[in-house]
Amino acid sequence: MDFTPSARATELTEAVRAFMQAEIEPVEEQYHRDLAAADDPWTPLPVVAELQAKAREQGLWNLFLPAGHGDAYAEKYGTTGGTGLSNVDYAPIAELTGRSFLAPHVFNCNAPDTGNMEVLLRYGSPEQQREWLEPLLRADIRSAFCMTEPDVASSDATNMAATAVVDGDEMVINGRKWWSTGVGHPDCAILIFMGLTAPDADRHSQHSMVLVPRDAPGVKVERLLSTMGTQDPPHGHGEVSFTDVRVPLANVLAGPGRAFEIAQGRLGPGRVHHCMRLIGLAEAALELACRRALDRTAFGKPLANLGGNRERIADARIKINQARLLVQHAAWLLDTQGPLGAFSAVSEIKVAVPTMAQEVIDMAMQLHGGGGLSEDLPLAGAWTNARALRLADGPDEVHRGVAARLELMKYGAKR
Amino acid sequence: MDFTPSARATELTEAVRAFMQAEIEPVEEQYHRDLAAADDPWTPLPVVAELQAKAREQGLWNLFLPAGHGDAYAEKYGTTGGTGLSNVDYAPIAELTGRSFLAPHVFNCNAPDTGNMEVLLRYGSPEQQREWLEPLLRADIRSAFCMTEPDVASSDATNMAATAVVDGDEMVINGRKWWSTGVGHPDCAILIFMGLTAPDADRHSQHSMVLVPRDAPGVKVERLLSTMGTQDPPHGHGEVSFTDVRVPLANVLAGPGRAFEIAQGRLGPGRVHHCMRLIGLAEAALELACRRALDRTAFGKPLANLGGNRERIADARIKINQARLLVQHAAWLLDTQGPLGAFSAVSEIKVAVPTMAQEVIDMAMQLHGGGGLSEDLPLAGAWTNARALRLADGPDEVHRGVAARLELMKYGAKR
Amino acid sequence: MDFTPSARATELTEAVRAFMQAEIEPVEEQYHRDLAAADDPWTPLPVVAELQAKAREQGLWNLFLPAGHGDAYAEKYGTTGGTGLSNVDYAPIAELTGRSFLAPHVFNCNAPDTGNMEVLLRYGSPEQQREWLEPLLRADIRSAFCMTEPDVASSDATNMAATAVVDGDEMVINGRKWWSTGVGHPDCAILIFMGLTAPDADRHSQHSMVLVPRDAPGVKVERLLSTMGTQDPPHGHGEVSFTDVRVPLANVLAGPGRAFEIAQGRLGPGRVHHCMRLIGLAEAALELACRRALDRTAFGKPLANLGGNRERIADARIKINQARLLVQHAAWLLDTQGPLGAFSAVSEIKVAVPTMAQEVIDMAMQLHGGGGLSEDLPLAGAWTNARALRLADGPDEVHRGVAARLELMKYGAKR
Amino acid sequence: MDFTPSARATELTEAVRAFMQAEIEPVEEQYHRDLAAADDPWTPLPVVAELQAKAREQGLWNLFLPAGHGDAYAEKYGTTGGTGLSNVDYAPIAELTGRSFLAPHVFNCNAPDTGNMEVLLRYGSPEQQREWLEPLLRADIRSAFCMTEPDVASSDATNMAATAVVDGDEMVINGRKWWSTGVGHPDCAILIFMGLTAPDADRHSQHSMVLVPRDAPGVKVERLLSTMGTQDPPHGHGEVSFTDVRVPLANVLAGPGRAFEIAQGRLGPGRVHHCMRLIGLAEAALELACRRALDRTAFGKPLANLGGNRERIADARIKINQARLLVQHAAWLLDTQGPLGAFSAVSEIKVAVPTMAQEVIDMAMQLHGGGGLSEDLPLAGAWTNARALRLADGPDEVHRGVAARLELMKYGAKR
Repeated sequence: MDFTPSARATELTEAVRAFMQAEIEPVEEQYHRDLAAADDPWTPLPVVAELQAKAREQGLWNLFLPAGHGDAYAEKYGTTGGTGLSNVDYAPIAELTGRSFLAPHVFNCNAPDTGNMEVLLRYGSPEQQREWLEPLLRADIRSAFCMTEPDVASSDATNMAATAVVDGDEMVINGRKWWSTGVGHPDCAILIFMGLTAPDADRHSQHSMVLVPRDAPGVKVERLLSTMGTQDPPHGHGEVSFTDVRVPLANVLAGPGRAFEIAQGRLGPGRVHHCMRLIGLAEAALELACRRALDRTAFGKPLANLGGNRERIADARIKINQARLLVQHAAWLLDTQGPLGAFSAVSEIKVAVPTMAQEVIDMAMQLHGGGGLSEDLPLAGAWTNARALRLADGPDEVHRGVAARLELMKYGAKR
Repeated sequence: MDFTPSARATELTEAVRAFMQAEIEPVEEQYHRDLAAADDPWTPLPVVAELQAKAREQGLWNLFLPAGHGDAYAEKYGTTGGTGLSNVDYAPIAELTGRSFLAPHVFNCNAPDTGNMEVLLRYGSPEQQREWLEPLLRADIRSAFCMTEPDVASSDATNMAATAVVDGDEMVINGRKWWSTGVGHPDCAILIFMGLTAPDADRHSQHSMVLVPRDAPGVKVERLLSTMGTQDPPHGHGEVSFTDVRVPLANVLAGPGRAFEIAQGRLGPGRVHHCMRLIGLAEAALELACRRALDRTAFGKPLANLGGNRERIADARIKINQARLLVQHAAWLLDTQGPLGAFSAVSEIKVAVPTMAQEVIDMAMQLHGGGGLSEDLPLAGAWTNARALRLADGPDEVHRGVAARLELMKYGAKR
Repeated sequence: MDFTPSARATELTEAVRAFMQAEIEPVEEQYHRDLAAADDPWTPLPVVAELQAKAREQGLWNLFLPAGHGDAYAEKYGTTGGTGLSNVDYAPIAELTGRSFLAPHVFNCNAPDTGNMEVLLRYGSPEQQREWLEPLLRADIRSAFCMTEPDVASSDATNMAATAVVDGDEMVINGRKWWSTGVGHPDCAILIFMGLTAPDADRHSQHSMVLVPRDAPGVKVERLLSTMGTQDPPHGHGEVSFTDVRVPLANVLAGPGRAFEIAQGRLGPGRVHHCMRLIGLAEAALELACRRALDRTAFGKPLANLGGNRERIADARIKINQARLLVQHAAWLLDTQGPLGAFSAVSEIKVAVPTMAQEVIDMAMQLHGGGGLSEDLPLAGAWTNARALRLADGPDEVHRGVAARLELMKYGAKR
Repeated sequence: MDFTPSARATELTEAVRAFMQAEIEPVEEQYHRDLAAADDPWTPLPVVAELQAKAREQGLWNLFLPAGHGDAYAEKYGTTGGTGLSNVDYAPIAELTGRSFLAPHVFNCNAPDTGNMEVLLRYGSPEQQREWLEPLLRADIRSAFCMTEPDVASSDATNMAATAVVDGDEMVINGRKWWSTGVGHPDCAILIFMGLTAPDADRHSQHSMVLVPRDAPGVKVERLLSTMGTQDPPHGHGEVSFTDVRVPLANVLAGPGRAFEIAQGRLGPGRVHHCMRLIGLAEAALELACRRALDRTAFGKPLANLGGNRERIADARIKINQARLLVQHAAWLLDTQGPLGAFSAVSEIKVAVPTMAQEVIDMAMQLHGGGGLSEDLPLAGAWTNARALRLADGPDEVHRGVAARLELMKYGAKR
């Protein structure tokens, strides 16, 4: 059980840290101010592309690309030396990028594009990879993942009711999806759509994943949803309708009926990334809390010496440390035993980490008083982000169900 | 210990309930949509004034006006029959109005105007009352309360550093305030400003409260703050600078150095109102959760029959009931023993109720999945509202300090 | 919603308080020491009977006797003036007695005898009352309640498998019960046994309650159970086997098949009593915590000024106040609307109060360091007592189920 | 960051597991029954010595002996091949032994003897080692650690008021200690006493640790304390008075004034052991909970399918996994960076693990209903044990203080 990153990964981590300090931290506040003041926040500010160019130049690009897959791509588009990083290797990098809202985009390591690229890498045909994966690896285009539906409880993925029906050599796509993150970005060119193909097949073989160009006739972004009042421009979360959308059968990923198999492989690393980024966010919040506790005085003492503030700081330190170790362990299981061996572990982090982050950030907000709620600090955004991740990628309750089922199966439970 | 409202209060409660169902509920969703789509959200939509006119006509106006004070005003501008309602009487009305974002404004019962009117009622001179209280009671103007400062820990109110200096027959005002709620409203005409007058006086006699016209030279709204990303138009929370603002000495409330005495009297009922409104919000969230739990199906069952959902609903019911009783008890203490007798009780509700509301609303959000985070439901706004109230009117930690001090004094503690 | 006790109840409460201070507090520590040192702890120490005699003499006897029932008994055996106390009246008395382990016995107000007396009062025939109720009211005998069974999940009372079969003019009783509290007392003379009589009847009409003399042939106390290592002498919790025990049909309470109806009526007030006693226990723990916080010094300060101790004291005060109000409300509902109107409320207090008490007492233990765990203070016993009450009289989970069902039924749920 | 135990440690872990299954589990229930029935529970039952002989024969003896110290002893008295185990190596063994109350004693790996042996190993003179360490390593004698005092807040160790005064070539010892675990055992022969020697020295150089024979004149066990009603025979926790006890100066460990230095070194590994044993206890409780959830039926379903039980099982799994990783990390820090590098980590586990264990065991108790509280299952004892460890070896609050101080020092805090 060795969580030590490789020497190459340690070097990259330090390079990412240096890049963030030198290039991202100095501009981030201004970025948010400019975006808030922009006439059209859905047009990306030029600074992002400039930073991306620098990051790519310095070899800090596509670092998420997994070991053992896509070595050719890694060499051509990424920087991990043609070998890729393991999940254990990438974890501290993801943690660092999580401290900033910009960083994941700057390093081309942001959800959902990472997960979509990984799907194309593992399951895409050479043609699919040439057409969609390569421009994604260059950040020439952006993508979205269209799975959740407004009209069914999507926590049970077998509920998905939108259809992807084979008609000759075409797939005909109908239905409505929402929380399709990234669909508001002007560069969004490709959607991965999950739909019902074979209602009579085995429960986990009924659905397909299909590549649908954003500009295919019949695709319509009905609206951009807000999360706690924010639409997250320039990426956005869309409600998207699909009306008799036709794509070639060749756009199906891996073949009809294999959506669950693909989703399974996609989600493990993606959840590790999300969780490590949240740990970075929680660390950043704890740092703000400590600085505030030392700098601010009330009732004649620094806040650090008032009431339960030290206890709360200690609890935050303990919670973060426990959460990080749990995620590193899940990453190690993914690396050494694959998705099945990490099945419970990945659900466990998905339950533990967003709640931990929400609590730590909440504490930091409280220590800052009114300012903690305002746009003067990144805390309010971090807090609603952590809250949203208790639902995104499956609600806590579903993941608890997975962990409990696997626990009870040790003692003979069927399910 | 009798929490039964008077017959008159019960009638008014039922009238408010009927008005909300008939007039407010049907338009509230559209109101939020229109506001979101407005070119200038800081211009109030006409529907508010229309509803205010109807409410006033039906005698559902200024119901917060306290018993024993302002009977003449109650007769002239309010509807409580010239006698006013006790805190116990008004509590269920405040709970009802809390279910809606519009309702408190429609009934002229919204913070901070209620608190400001109460201050003018209790401490205002006849001239001050004629000039500011009367138009406020008619909702012809709006007001703001300028207490919290960005540069000092305002949780310790003796820290307030902005100054109100006597110069002949004028007060000269300088400093910077923030979280001045309501200052963004175009009808905001009067600010109650708290500032340091006598730095050498006794700790609780150093500050004054001064009436400062919004349009006095030297008053500048530097910016409107956002809370969790939202600026709350058309009311807003302002950061306001005061530069050599001069007002007549006659604008001082009750006399120089009496700010603490006034704050004390103002805050008890105001906190009861806040807390009762939050209980209404939590009840509304629980209702949404129950309806969702029965209507939505996943894994072949209504959500009500999945995992811990029933236990969470039961816990929400228990928490709300406990919180309501605690607030009713504080209201009863205010009515029967005054602010001093209710000192601990008012701090206790300020700690218990916003946390309770945040938890109950969080549960309701979780039960709704992604939709719970979106603008399709009032839950996300309710949740951030409850969160903000763990800081507004004093952070939880300060109120816990009050309750602990009074508890320990029973056993001989000096403080 | 008036929680004010009657004048008579207030007088009695003060008399109980005075009696406890004058007579019980001075001897309680020695009582526990003597009991621990006794050769046979199952022989009651004489001080109990002496205190009982004094209490009875001063009219502080059988105060639990409910209003509207048993007026004749109240006059003859009790002291409540022939009218009985309402649940609201009795609540503060129960709270006071809960501060002490001895007090409920001294005032003849201890479980399970109170519940058993109430059953006899409401459902007993004149003969049953003469034979069993009268000596119980005099404390000449003690009783036990035999419901829970080791072999079935007794949280679902319809599971009860022990049998009470009609055979001519006799009931034949077989089966095994446990947690029969009080059965270890040498004066225990009568058991109320719940058994299956009519397996084919409607789900809630299958069981009967039968009066079984402790010395009936076939009744055997197999062992006395311990709770967290303690057997609670001289009362005890027994595992009792019943083997072909025969009693006259006249020993059935209210008639065969009516056990659920009786249990329903018995449990409401009993749970209010339990909960009020726990509130007394929590208050006593908070008092100890405050005194310790002021008296004990560490790191150069009284504990009250270290870390989060004040916040914990404030939280304890808030939790206790909320819990007490919730119980008073349940008592008021029982008084004004009967068991059905108080159905959810009684389950709500059964969930909320033991957990609250466990938390408050835990805090007080922690503040006392090692001494808090020891026999030098009543905290450890209070804590395990509160813990046990999260299971006794129905586990929290079952009561949450009741509250949730009633909540969901407001929105159309069948169950 | 490699938590993988050595191959030798893995072998030993499996041998311990096999021994526990073959030798300890079959007799443990009977052991507790026999002890409960014994006339004198303070006379150890012979089965313990029999099992110790077997364990020693199989080389499962003194496994706690640390790497790099005591290699000669390891070869002579232990079984770890003359090299000792690292903390990472020993952690899984400690976890296994924690599942049982007997196992730590059977393997001569129980507190406080392990800590005392380690002190003698690190700080003892050759004479001290020959006289006391060697018989302890053979389990010929037992020991106690006398630090905590009833009259001062011992959470602040600089408070210790008992004295150890140099008088010529003797130490004169006076004072009163309590919670001296193990002092009730008839084989207890040696006490490590901590007392004040140089009140004017630097705050951390005032105290000494002295070896005091149990039978020295002036040593008196005043009483054996109970923890939650249990005296834990045959080991016990004593209150011990020292009256003009005289021992040779040669009995001082490491020299006068070095108690803090010794305590520091002693406590790190000891806390890792305590925490890993608690993790074993929590795992055993979760196993019982799962088996019960599958075997027991209520309301027509196995408990596993009722209410929130699965969620609670998942949460227990997550909490245990997080806690174990945190302890493994602390062990790894101790191994690689020594006590100073592990300073915060050791305090963090001391806060996190007992609370976690208390919660998991509480859940398991609740799932078992009344039986969970009784002597039929090891849960009640496990629960009170976990609770006591929130105070033993320093209350949570003190350890939170350590973690917070080290966190704040990252940002410039002095303390």
